[in-house]
Amino acid sequence: MIKKEIQERLDNLTKPKGSLGKLENIALKYGTFKNQKLPKLPNKKSVYVFAGDHGIAKEGVSAFPQEVTVQMVMNFLNGGAAINVFARHENSDLFIVDSGVNYDFEPHEKLLIKKVNYSTKNFYKEYAMTREEALKALDYGRDVAKHAIKNGVELAAIGDMGIGNTTTATAVAHAYGISMEDIIDIGTVINNEQLSHKQKVVETAIKNFGPFNDGIDILQKVGSYCFGEMAGFILECYENNIPVVIDGYPTSAGALIAYKINPEISKGLFVGHKSFVKGHQKILEIMGLTPILDLDMRLGEGTGAVLSFNLIEASIKMINEMATFSDAGVTKGEE
Amino acid sequence: MIKKEIQERLDNLTKPKGSLGKLENIALKYGTFKNQKLPKLPNKKSVYVFAGDHGIAKEGVSAFPQEVTVQMVMNFLNGGAAINVFARHENSDLFIVDSGVNYDFEPHEKLLIKKVNYSTKNFYKEYAMTREEALKALDYGRDVAKHAIKNGVELAAIGDMGIGNTTTATAVAHAYGISMEDIIDIGTVINNEQLSHKQKVVETAIKNFGPFNDGIDILQKVGSYCFGEMAGFILECYENNIPVVIDGYPTSAGALIAYKINPEISKGLFVGHKSFVKGHQKILEIMGLTPILDLDMRLGEGTGAVLSFNLIEASIKMINEMATFSDAGVTKGEE
Repeated sequence: MIKKEIQERLDNLTKPKGSLGKLENIALKYGTFKNQKLPKLPNKKSVYVFAGDHGIAKEGVSAFPQEVTVQMVMNFLNGGAAINVFARHENSDLFIVDSGVNYDFEPHEKLLIKKVNYSTKNFYKEYAMTREEALKALDYGRDVAKHAIKNGVELAAIGDMGIGNTTTATAVAHAYGISMEDIIDIGTVINNEQLSHKQKVVETAIKNFGPFNDGIDILQKVGSYCFGEMAGFILECYENNIPVVIDGYPTSAGALIAYKINPEISKGLFVGHKSFVKGHQKILEIMGLTPILDLDMRLGEGTGAVLSFNLIEASIKMINEMATFSDAGVTKGEE
Repeated sequence: MIKKEIQERLDNLTKPKGSLGKLENIALKYGTFKNQKLPKLPNKKSVYVFAGDHGIAKEGVSAFPQEVTVQMVMNFLNGGAAINVFARHENSDLFIVDSGVNYDFEPHEKLLIKKVNYSTKNFYKEYAMTREEALKALDYGRDVAKHAIKNGVELAAIGDMGIGNTTTATAVAHAYGISMEDIIDIGTVINNEQLSHKQKVVETAIKNFGPFNDGIDILQKVGSYCFGEMAGFILECYENNIPVVIDGYPTSAGALIAYKINPEISKGLFVGHKSFVKGHQKILEIMGLTPILDLDMRLGEGTGAVLSFNLIEASIKMINEMATFSDAGVTKGEE
């Protein structure tokens, strides 16, 4: 019902039908999810960056050493990373979530300690975590969403940071059933030898640990704490009618775990950008999602998600503020 | 020199090399054009929408009747069009330029009267304008740029509005030498019969009026007043070191005329978005330009150009505000 009403209004605004492309799709989806013909601008926006160490990093699957996870969290807290710049630019709050970094941080007003454990295990050799830890990660993610709700956030974004996260995303996607050819990616720049090792690591784990019963099973065996927390965050936001913008490859794998638990969540999900990484697109297709930006980015941290805020807001203003053909006395074209 | 310095800074910021994709390219190009290693944010932004009537509209090449040009100018002046919403959203000034609308508008603070004549001629039957008019259009476009300079504009965008403008753009592109297969487009939605008539109209004109000596010759024979003014605007902005963001298909054809006069102008040109219209991409390839957004839009009015302001500013902030690896004590990855 509301969807039809919104579509009718879009078709009556002073522009050729459909000529605002994705912006019309965004307005339609946003308004339908919020059940508002004229959706309201979000009063408050916030991005949560889930940081964690991935045991799989021990396999040398990244161009960066594992200590960079800690260093980057420090960089976030000091305001010097890309996500800090873009969150300020988009007038968004920013919080960092310690989902499972192998380090004890000092308290900081922008840091939420939701540490399931100090790094996951190396899933090339053993399950990434226990089932109890997987469930705890989902709960902690829901806690982070409650933090957002309490703070009055009406549009949320998520990002991910952790050396080894693209390998984990590849394992989750492959466990879900996507073929390796469709997903293997370069992550941050690594050489061919590292790439084929990365592939072998993932294929071995999926072969040894599969078949997978459900999203929690995938999370436990080849996932990561930050992925579980992102999934819990998405589930809780969906249940509270808060739209969530996901970012690149790791966040989409986190969303895929939530989707496996409840496919309805895709109704409230937006995708900030199309990652340079191949597997990203495949995961989005499963969930029926289309990225907003396409900037050849492959950084993560929520950067692509936050940068799309501007266009989501533009699409909301468009449907609210544009004149209709009859309001403006403009002749409507042929259908 | 400056280009190398900017690239070095980009490579030392706390992110994998090149991982911010197009945003890094934008910062590099913007800073190089402005000759600033740390480019300054534009103090003032403005979009100029060039409106004109195209005689070719008499051939029934558009889904909208010609009176819509006047009606849409009124809509712009009343603040109800998409470009009004997006210019406000992006904190940009907006001016409408009457380049050659077949109507006498009342004076309005947001309207610049730079009318070369009341509509161009129908180029299916005769030259679109006289050579004197073509030169006058270029001069008037330079006058509009001087208006921007006087107002302190540091980042400009252009848009185009006028029934028949995509047919004119197709004629300009074909006159430039791009094959019809590579450019034929749907413009606003028209049916197959109209599409083949549109193609015939353009092919006939190019056959009858070619070969073309130069950009002014193309403008005179198959162009439009608004295309000439956009070309003049771009040339004057280039000479005054002001970056210009072009929009979709008609504005890129206007830019192509400027490029034919002085290919250096591409150094200061940015492309707001990739139009849904096929020929757009071909014109951009000639000028070596890459669009920033890709939103399946085909509206014009400068909408795609203005929406890209947010990302241009994000890229400028990125290079200015991000920490370097050494500043932040983050370990640099393998090259």
